[in-house]
Amino acid sequence: MTTQTFFPVAQNHHKAFGSLSVPKRLLLGPGPSNANPEVLQALAFPPVGHLDPFYVHLMGEVQELLRYAWQTDNRLTLPMSGTGSAAMEATIANSVEVGDKVLVAIKGYFGHRLADMADRYKAEVKTIGKSWGEAFTLEEIELALIKHRPSIFALVHAETSTGVCQPMDGIGDLCRKYDCLLLLDTVTSLGGVPLFLDSWGVDLAYSCSQKGLSCPPGLGPFTISPRAEEKLHARKGKVPNWYLDVSLLNKYWGSDRVYHHTAPVNMNFGIREALRLLSEEGLENAWNRHKMNAERLWSGLDSLGIQMLVDEDLRLPTLTTVCIPEGIDGKAFTMHLLNNHGIEIGGGLGDLAGKVWRIGLMGYNSTQENVDTLLNLFDTELPTFRSKTSSAA
Amino acid sequence: MTTQTFFPVAQNHHKAFGSLSVPKRLLLGPGPSNANPEVLQALAFPPVGHLDPFYVHLMGEVQELLRYAWQTDNRLTLPMSGTGSAAMEATIANSVEVGDKVLVAIKGYFGHRLADMADRYKAEVKTIGKSWGEAFTLEEIELALIKHRPSIFALVHAETSTGVCQPMDGIGDLCRKYDCLLLLDTVTSLGGVPLFLDSWGVDLAYSCSQKGLSCPPGLGPFTISPRAEEKLHARKGKVPNWYLDVSLLNKYWGSDRVYHHTAPVNMNFGIREALRLLSEEGLENAWNRHKMNAERLWSGLDSLGIQMLVDEDLRLPTLTTVCIPEGIDGKAFTMHLLNNHGIEIGGGLGDLAGKVWRIGLMGYNSTQENVDTLLNLFDTELPTFRSKTSSAA
Repeated sequence: MTTQTFFPVAQNHHKAFGSLSVPKRLLLGPGPSNANPEVLQALAFPPVGHLDPFYVHLMGEVQELLRYAWQTDNRLTLPMSGTGSAAMEATIANSVEVGDKVLVAIKGYFGHRLADMADRYKAEVKTIGKSWGEAFTLEEIELALIKHRPSIFALVHAETSTGVCQPMDGIGDLCRKYDCLLLLDTVTSLGGVPLFLDSWGVDLAYSCSQKGLSCPPGLGPFTISPRAEEKLHARKGKVPNWYLDVSLLNKYWGSDRVYHHTAPVNMNFGIREALRLLSEEGLENAWNRHKMNAERLWSGLDSLGIQMLVDEDLRLPTLTTVCIPEGIDGKAFTMHLLNNHGIEIGGGLGDLAGKVWRIGLMGYNSTQENVDTLLNLFDTELPTFRSKTSSAA
Repeated sequence: MTTQTFFPVAQNHHKAFGSLSVPKRLLLGPGPSNANPEVLQALAFPPVGHLDPFYVHLMGEVQELLRYAWQTDNRLTLPMSGTGSAAMEATIANSVEVGDKVLVAIKGYFGHRLADMADRYKAEVKTIGKSWGEAFTLEEIELALIKHRPSIFALVHAETSTGVCQPMDGIGDLCRKYDCLLLLDTVTSLGGVPLFLDSWGVDLAYSCSQKGLSCPPGLGPFTISPRAEEKLHARKGKVPNWYLDVSLLNKYWGSDRVYHHTAPVNMNFGIREALRLLSEEGLENAWNRHKMNAERLWSGLDSLGIQMLVDEDLRLPTLTTVCIPEGIDGKAFTMHLLNNHGIEIGGGLGDLAGKVWRIGLMGYNSTQENVDTLLNLFDTELPTFRSKTSSAA
C-alpha cells in the first residue's frame, strides 16, 4: 500500500507580510479604469455556490444585460471566466479549425495578437496592414477579402494601442458577400463607444470588464452569432481548448446548467452591477458622456499646443493617444504623475513605444472633473518637467 | 472612406434589474467555500494598474506566499488568471506536445477531465482506473509506468468527486526512475491537506482559490519545476494556448514585467490576503485544524449511523463523501438545507451521482461550530425528512 510521510515544513518562503493596504489611484490609462464603488461593494458579497438557484438566475441577468450593452440577440452571450484576452482567445479557439484561412486586419498591437493566436490554432493566417494610427477603408477590406477568401475576417473595432475607432459601415455586408465570419475586438469600445453588433453583422466578439463597464479586470464578455454557431457545430473535432470550449460552456450557461468549471462568482456579482449601472444610465447617455468628455480633453490639449496621433474623425472617445512633445522623457512624466499625483496614464506599445501617451476616459472615469484635473497637470507640470528634463540632459 | 451610421438603440434586452442583494450561505459543499471576510474586504479595494510598481511588488508577494503554501522553491509559481480548471489546462497545454504519451490515473471525475484535456492537446492518452472511492497503490502505478512509458504521469492528489486523498510516498521516485514528469491536481488539498511538492518530486501542479485558501473562485495557482521547464524550453512549436502560455506569462511575472494580459488585480488582492492569512496561521496549524474538524464530522456521522464512502485512512480532511441513506431523496434534502437553512452541501458527480453527498470543510469554513451545526441538522432534520419522503412516496 502507498503511504504518506509527513516532512518538516520548510520555512524559507514563510514571510511575514502585513495586511494589505492599496494606494489610491486615478486610472486614466488604457485600462483598467477605476471601478464604480457600487461594483466594488458587489465584489465583496460573500460568495454563493456556482449552481445555487440564486446564482443561476444572476447568470441569466448578466447575459441579458450584456446583450443590451452589445446590441445583440445572440443566445450565446456570456462572460468568459478570464480577462479580455481569454475571451479573445475563445473567439479564435471555437471558430478556427486546422487549415482555416483567417484574415487579420492589423493596425496596431492587438491585431498582431489576433494573428498570433490564430496561428497557434493552426489557421492559415493572412494579414493586411495599416500604419498605427489609421483605419481601414471598405475598399482595402474588400480587396483583401477577394484576394484571400478567408473563412474568418478578424478586425479590431477600438485599437487600444493607437486610439483608432474603425468605422464599421458595410464591413458585415462584405463578409456575407465573400462568405466569411466577422470577428470583432470591442475591448475598448463596449460601454463607451456606439456598438451595434447585430446591425453590423458581427459573428464573434469579445470585450473586457475593466474599461467601459467600470468593473475590475477579470471577466471577458464573449458572444457568438447563430451563423458562427453553425461553424462550431460543424467542427470535425473537439475545440482544442477545454476551458474556453463554448459547446461545453453552453451546457452551463444554457438551460441544462451542467457543471463545467467553478464560476468566478464574485467577479460575476461585480459585472452584474456594472452592467446594471450602464443599463440604468442608458447606452445613448453613456456614449454621449464619453464623447463629450473626450471632446473636452481634445480641445484642452489643442489649446495647450499638444498634438494627438489620430485624426479627429477616427478618434476613440475612450482612449486618446497623445504625441509626447519633443524634449520630454515620456516615461519620466508618467512616473511623476503616478508618484506625485496618484494618476496613471499609459505609455505607447509596439510601434508607438516612447512616442505617445495613452489617456483613457472610460466608464466611471469619463467625467468632466477628471478631464480638467489632467489638463491642469499638463498645463502646469509639463512645462516645469520639460525644463527639468532639459537641465538634467 | 468607411463611415459610421448610428442605429436606433434596441430596447428588447433593456431590463430594469434592481441593485444586487445576495443571500447569505454557509458553503459546506465541494467548493466554493466561504471566503474570509478580510479577503472580501481586500477584493473591494479600488483597482490599480497591472503595471503599477505597487502591483508588481504585490505579485512577488503572492508568488512567495504560494511557494510556502505548496512547499516548493519553483521559480514559476503564480496564479493563472482563471479558475482552477484554467490552471489545470495550463499544466497540460505547456507540457504536452503532439504525440506525447500521457498516462492519467483515473479514480474520479477530475481524472477524466485531465484525460479529456490531454486528448485535446493531441497527446497519446493512456489511462489506468480505480473504483471511485479508492486510491492507487505504488505497485499499480509502477506497472502502468512500465507498460506505457509515458512522458507525463498525471494524478489527482485530492479527488473532489470522491473525497479520496492519494498517498504520495514513492510516486515521485518512480516518475524519475521511468523518466516522466509528475503532474498533480491539488485543487482540494492546497491549504487544507499536507502538501510537499518538492519533497514529493512533483513537476507540475495546479489548484484553486476558493477552497483551502478561503478566497472566492477566480484564480488558479500553478507551478512548474525546473525539470518541467526544460521540457517547455525544448518544445518544437509555440504552446497552442496563448492565454496560458507560461513562457509569455513568465515575462510578466518574472523580472521583465512585459505586458501579457491585464491581470485580474482585485482577485489578486484577494488571494494575497488569503495566502497571507494562511501563512499567519502556519501550514501545520491549518492542516491540523482541518484534520481535527474532519474527524469531529466523521465521528458525529458515525454516531448517527451514517456511512461514509471512503476508508478513514484515505479520507480527505477537506471533503467527505457521505453515502445517502436508503429511502432518502438526496437532491431534495440538499435543497431543503439550502432553502430552509442557507446551507449548501454537494451532490455526487459522475459514477457517484445520486449516491453520495459531498461535505466540504475547507479553509475559513473548517470550524467546530460549522461541524456541529451540520451534524445537528443531520440529526434532527434527516429523520423527519425520511418520513416526509416516505409518506410522499
